[in-house]
Amino acid sequence: MSEEVSNAPARVVKKKYFTCADAPNKLVLENGTTLGPITIAYETYGHLSEEKDNAILINHAFSGDSHVAGRYTTDTENEKPGWWDFLVGPGKGIDTNRYFVICSNILGSCNGTTGPSSIDPETNKPYALNFPMVTIGDMVATQKLLIDHLGISRLLAVIGGSVGGMQTLEWAIRYPEMVRAVVPIATTMRHSALAIAFNEIARQAIMSDPNWNKGEYYGKTKPDMGLAVARMVGHVTYLSDDAMRRKFGRRLQGKDAFSFGFDVDFQVESYLRYQGNKFVQRFDANSLLYITKAADYFDIVERINGSGPANTQDANGHNHKYLVISYSSDWLYPTYQAKELVKALKRSGRNVSFCEIESDCGHDAFLIPDERLSNLMRGFLEGIKKS
Amino acid sequence: MSEEVSNAPARVVKKKYFTCADAPNKLVLENGTTLGPITIAYETYGHLSEEKDNAILINHAFSGDSHVAGRYTTDTENEKPGWWDFLVGPGKGIDTNRYFVICSNILGSCNGTTGPSSIDPETNKPYALNFPMVTIGDMVATQKLLIDHLGISRLLAVIGGSVGGMQTLEWAIRYPEMVRAVVPIATTMRHSALAIAFNEIARQAIMSDPNWNKGEYYGKTKPDMGLAVARMVGHVTYLSDDAMRRKFGRRLQGKDAFSFGFDVDFQVESYLRYQGNKFVQRFDANSLLYITKAADYFDIVERINGSGPANTQDANGHNHKYLVISYSSDWLYPTYQAKELVKALKRSGRNVSFCEIESDCGHDAFLIPDERLSNLMRGFLEGIKKS
Repeated sequence: MSEEVSNAPARVVKKKYFTCADAPNKLVLENGTTLGPITIAYETYGHLSEEKDNAILINHAFSGDSHVAGRYTTDTENEKPGWWDFLVGPGKGIDTNRYFVICSNILGSCNGTTGPSSIDPETNKPYALNFPMVTIGDMVATQKLLIDHLGISRLLAVIGGSVGGMQTLEWAIRYPEMVRAVVPIATTMRHSALAIAFNEIARQAIMSDPNWNKGEYYGKTKPDMGLAVARMVGHVTYLSDDAMRRKFGRRLQGKDAFSFGFDVDFQVESYLRYQGNKFVQRFDANSLLYITKAADYFDIVERINGSGPANTQDANGHNHKYLVISYSSDWLYPTYQAKELVKALKRSGRNVSFCEIESDCGHDAFLIPDERLSNLMRGFLEGIKKS
Repeated sequence: MSEEVSNAPARVVKKKYFTCADAPNKLVLENGTTLGPITIAYETYGHLSEEKDNAILINHAFSGDSHVAGRYTTDTENEKPGWWDFLVGPGKGIDTNRYFVICSNILGSCNGTTGPSSIDPETNKPYALNFPMVTIGDMVATQKLLIDHLGISRLLAVIGGSVGGMQTLEWAIRYPEMVRAVVPIATTMRHSALAIAFNEIARQAIMSDPNWNKGEYYGKTKPDMGLAVARMVGHVTYLSDDAMRRKFGRRLQGKDAFSFGFDVDFQVESYLRYQGNKFVQRFDANSLLYITKAADYFDIVERINGSGPANTQDANGHNHKYLVISYSSDWLYPTYQAKELVKALKRSGRNVSFCEIESDCGHDAFLIPDERLSNLMRGFLEGIKKS
């Protein structure tokens, strides 16, 4: 293995790009329109076995990217590692000494994969709202082009949390022969009215910002104020009442008394403003609009309920194995929704394990270092490999 | 009784105004500044007894007003009745054949009582952000001036929900001799980080709107977009996951298929946009800033814990009676916070009854017609009257 040993400080990865869906073979989207060429930004970790049977696809959440683990440079002091670094790496829960891990930025995003901020080859200007409305299914269709390109005919597992969890469910339904195991984490078969409501507020916050300008803000002043408010809404849904009480309570920010004004008084206000302002530096407002809408549209209930044996086995006739994971304090995708998923999967004849992890960290829990998730993942993947 | 009999169609009430805190006797606010003159808009229902012992003060929630019941005209077809019409009226839970009910618009609001949109006599322009930061205590202090003005030395009860519930708690601590019974409904001793977070997002939505213009928008274009987003945030916190699922689910708004665009797809989106747009016609953005901040500042824990017998009895030596009511699906002020209030009140020697009403309507439940609330209130008030 050329991969560094566990906990090595300088696990350097490189972002790669793959272009597909070139004319005339543009990708036909779920809404009936076509899109192409499409660039996919992705990263890989570990090595693909000769039998090509150790590949794991990780799907990132709404604002994530392909940088799931490691660093781009050796500067461990100033550079933060990828978003699931605690889980993905040599000797870790998803062990890159054993598995070949792939993570790609989703279609419609802004971290290297084609999205509304990309240049439309027909106009030589950013797509903006001319970007077509893409779905979770379309995101998965582009990931499939990447997996084909890598010469992999069957993934050992598809793993993802939140909107990434929706992608895992979509993968197994859309390309059953290409998947052996599926791990949907902190996710749902479809958004509740509450989840749609929060997304709609986030979208309205952006579209209310005059700088949004119907999406035509590239090269001009960006709708940072609206995007920051949208991000604040998101952050509240990612935390739980308990987590916020523990993290902030009613503590004041750097002073002893109320300001009796509209500046920051409480730490939680400071946190939200900070998160909002940080987000606008790394994320595109139009991408938020597209991806939240894709998540709101996602609804796989009938396709799970209506799927027969042909949809529940991989190319070798192995029955799909599912590990569904929820977090006790997640109120965006609560455990009752995970249980509905488990029931639907079982009814359709799938092999399902379910685990609710006790946590007071809310929806965000799946992104927070936790040995329980690492151990669950390690055990589940070993079981798949052996079976 | 001149009040119409129960269910009479034309129970007409009139908004009245009382001006107080004239110079030089301006009201000294909790933040140390002064304010005056102050106009208080209020309404009364029923008749004050000769002994003046049947007065009940009702405190409205954040965006409410003095119009608690009845109509301003006889036009029952086109005019909606007051916000607690199901509870307050002849023969109702708070029976205006028996009790003299008073409700005043809170300080800082925009429905007749002095607030940021009122004219500052020193500049002859609206106060805007020159309006001082008022607290729940300041709101209660102005209500006390009104009660004095009405010649009432002791209220039979102070009743209120949400931010109105905070005012009830403040009343009993601030003017213990003037209160016999206290009914805090769907409220809390202090905001959690979660509640502060939602208020902060609402404020940021307004302050991010360029038309807000640091509060100086009177006579100009108002920050309607920001205020609408702020209201949407509020509406989500007032409903529960269950209530939203029942009310909207994933139903589409007036069509069979997704728009694959950013127009309204789901009913819940339509509802939120409608609520946001309706709100901007009746509420002032600066008032939202001030009142949410007052609610965030409110913290009566130590004053309840530290209060001795002198603070728990009215002028006749009656021990205060509390009826604390929470709703099972309220996640803004959850039942656990009501229980903390009950414990604190009991520890300080108060007489407390507690009831959690089962409901899937979330925080809004206290505003929705419900015989259980009416019956609870009727029984509790009869008990006070007799004691």
